[in-house]
Formats: sequence, structure tokens, C-alpha cells
Amino acid sequence: MQPKYARARQAKRASYDESTIHAILDGGLVGHVGFIADERPMVIPMAYARRDGTIYLHGASKTRIARLDGVPMCMEVTQLTGIVAARSGFHHSVNYRSAVVHGTARFVDGNELDIALDMIVDHLLPGRSAEVRPMSAQERKATGVVALDIEHASAKVRTGPPVDDEADLALGIWGGVVPVTTAVGSGVQDAFTPDGAPEPASLAAARRKFA
Amino acid sequence: MQPKYARARQAKRASYDESTIHAILDGGLVGHVGFIADERPMVIPMAYARRDGTIYLHGASKTRIARLDGVPMCMEVTQLTGIVAARSGFHHSVNYRSAVVHGTARFVDGNELDIALDMIVDHLLPGRSAEVRPMSAQERKATGVVALDIEHASAKVRTGPPVDDEADLALGIWGGVVPVTTAVGSGVQDAFTPDGAPEPASLAAARRKFA
Repeated sequence: MQPKYARARQAKRASYDESTIHAILDGGLVGHVGFIADERPMVIPMAYARRDGTIYLHGASKTRIARLDGVPMCMEVTQLTGIVAARSGFHHSVNYRSAVVHGTARFVDGNELDIALDMIVDHLLPGRSAEVRPMSAQERKATGVVALDIEHASAKVRTGPPVDDEADLALGIWGGVVPVTTAVGSGVQDAFTPDGAPEPASLAAARRKFA
Repeated sequence: MQPKYARARQAKRASYDESTIHAILDGGLVGHVGFIADERPMVIPMAYARRDGTIYLHGASKTRIARLDGVPMCMEVTQLTGIVAARSGFHHSVNYRSAVVHGTARFVDGNELDIALDMIVDHLLPGRSAEVRPMSAQERKATGVVALDIEHASAKVRTGPPVDDEADLALGIWGGVVPVTTAVGSGVQDAFTPDGAPEPASLAAARRKFA
């Protein structure tokens, strides 16, 4: 084996620039939100959307998250793209894109709330907010949105084949990558959708966005 | 519309018994691990495995996570299965299975470390640890495993179509579920795998496990 070639196979992991971090955030389906509750760490999955350097998190007004204001918060978004099967357990890994953002929770109200609510719907189904019945004042009151203004962010990306010890490459063991794919499918209409109603444009947009 | 029928369409969200929580943990690809670092919440994605009531988390010995011992820790695992498109932004949701476990970080060593390292490899590729070159003493030293003995756990599951306001059902707006599927594909062998080497059994096992 040629060491140079082996080096060329090194996995890539790094911190990335803002555009890379934003792309990972924008391409994620679920945000994993961490905060401190009763002096213990708490992590819950949440719907979210990014607007410039701010993350909007959605929760019912009654939930703990919606009451968070002024406390430190973290959100992690990860897309797993492959399982890396090496010749040793030690060199097993996964291919992924991951972003972690830190900030302070800020309760959202007024015009910013309207914008945030539409953006959270449109994050998963681009354009959906314009396809549906407008939000009522009652619904606005019942929906809590917390903003996380990004104060610090980092990203990690791992791609490529396993990076095995030179001595293991000759063992004749299968090594490579097992692809993991997340896909958005065709919409399944419910019993209240008019027969023959065309699938709305937002669903095709979601398939393109999360392909 | 018949109220009874509408009620029958209610989304299911609940806390679940141990077997349900274990099934969600065992079916997850990535664990989202929360802990407190410098008085701030931190969430990082990690490979993991469950053994009875204990979660094993893998990290290089040098990383912060591997040095955690005796501190409170949380792990959340979520499988998103659909985007729920309602007739109002307010009733948009996602279908998912999610488990959140709480415990205290415990540094793992000795025989338990050997078991944990194999289990973490086998979680993603069942049986893989027996297909590869055994771990060396050096590698054991370089690998940190943290145990999270589950002290408290809960699960949430949302399934089914949107739950719209009665008045919105007649609007003629498309409503339903957009399926989200995560799939494990066929292995892509690297340049050091012998020509014609058959795909190892662990890869097919992973496709079955995460189907």
C-alpha cells in the first residue's frame, strides 16, 4: 500500500464556514434542542426554521420550551449519510453532516411571531403556509415560538470510505460504506381531501429540498 | 362530519412502557446526547448501543464526552416517519417515534468496555464485531465509552393523518401525510476489498433492522 494513497483516503472532519452550517441547518428535518431544566440537561426533538442567524423553535404555549426566555440553549441537527464498515471495530464510523448552534432563548411575539410560524411550516413543506387557511388570533395565542439567536456555531462532516490500519487492508475483509438515505415520499391524502385534488406544490418542493 | 369519527382520528401521543422505549432506542441510528458543559447545555450526535437499562456512548478518549463521569446526562432518539400536512398552519405536525432517557454518566472500563465496544459496532451493523479483526489493547486504551444507566425514560409517538378543525375540512384543501423514509442501502465496497468478496451478513442484517 502507498502511504500517500492511504493519506488521501483520510476522512474529512472539520469546522465549517457560516454558509456550510446554514446549509446543514436548512437541510435538516428535526432539531435536537438542549437546555437545562432543574439543573439537568434536557434534549427534545423540535420543528424549527432558520432566518438569517436566528433559529425559530416551535412548541405549544403550555410546554416548557415555550416558556424558556433568556436561558442558554443549544440545537444540534444531523444528517446521517452512511455507515462506515472498516476492517476493525476501532475504525468503524459513520458518514454524516452535523451542525451545533448555541445561543440564548428569546420569547417571540408580534410580527416576528407571524413570520416565524410561517417559516416553521415552510421549512418542512416549502410554500405550504400560503396553501392553507390563515392563522387565527386564537391560534397565535396558543402557539409559542422561541428564538435562538446564534452566538456560536460549528459543523462536522465525515465522508468517504473507511480509514483502516495499513496492516488490516490485506486481511481480505470486506470494507466500505453502507449508504443511509432519508427520502420524502408522495403525499398520502386523508379522507377529507376532495377526490382528484392534485398534490399541492409544497409536497414536490419538500421532495426536492430533502432529496 | 361525525364528531366520533373526528375523535377517532385524534393523533396518538403518549408516554410508553419500557418495551416501547427500548424498541425506539434499538431502532435509532444516532443518539442526541445532552450534557452541561461550562454551565451551558451541549448536544452532540453519538453512536450508541443499549444493553438492558444501560446506554453505551462511544467517543475518542480525548473528547469531552469520554471524560464525563458522574454528571447528569440525557439522550434523545427520534425517528421521523412523516410530515403531517393540515388545512391550517396551526395543525401541521410530524409523525415520529421519540424516546428521551435520563441518567448519570459513568466511565466504562474492564470487561464492560469490551462488551460495550462490540455492542456499539453491532448496533448499526448487527454481527459486524465478529466479522472484523479483534480490538487491540492500544485501541481499547484509545476508545472512551460512557455508560448512561437509565434512571428515567419517556417516549412519544405520533401517527396518523392531520387533525383539523371541523370547519376547515370543507375548504377543499389537500390534507394528509407526506411519508419520510430512512433506508439502509447496499454496501459500496472500497478499493481494498477483494474483487468478488461477498457483502458481509452484517450489512443485510442492518437493512432488515432499519427497514
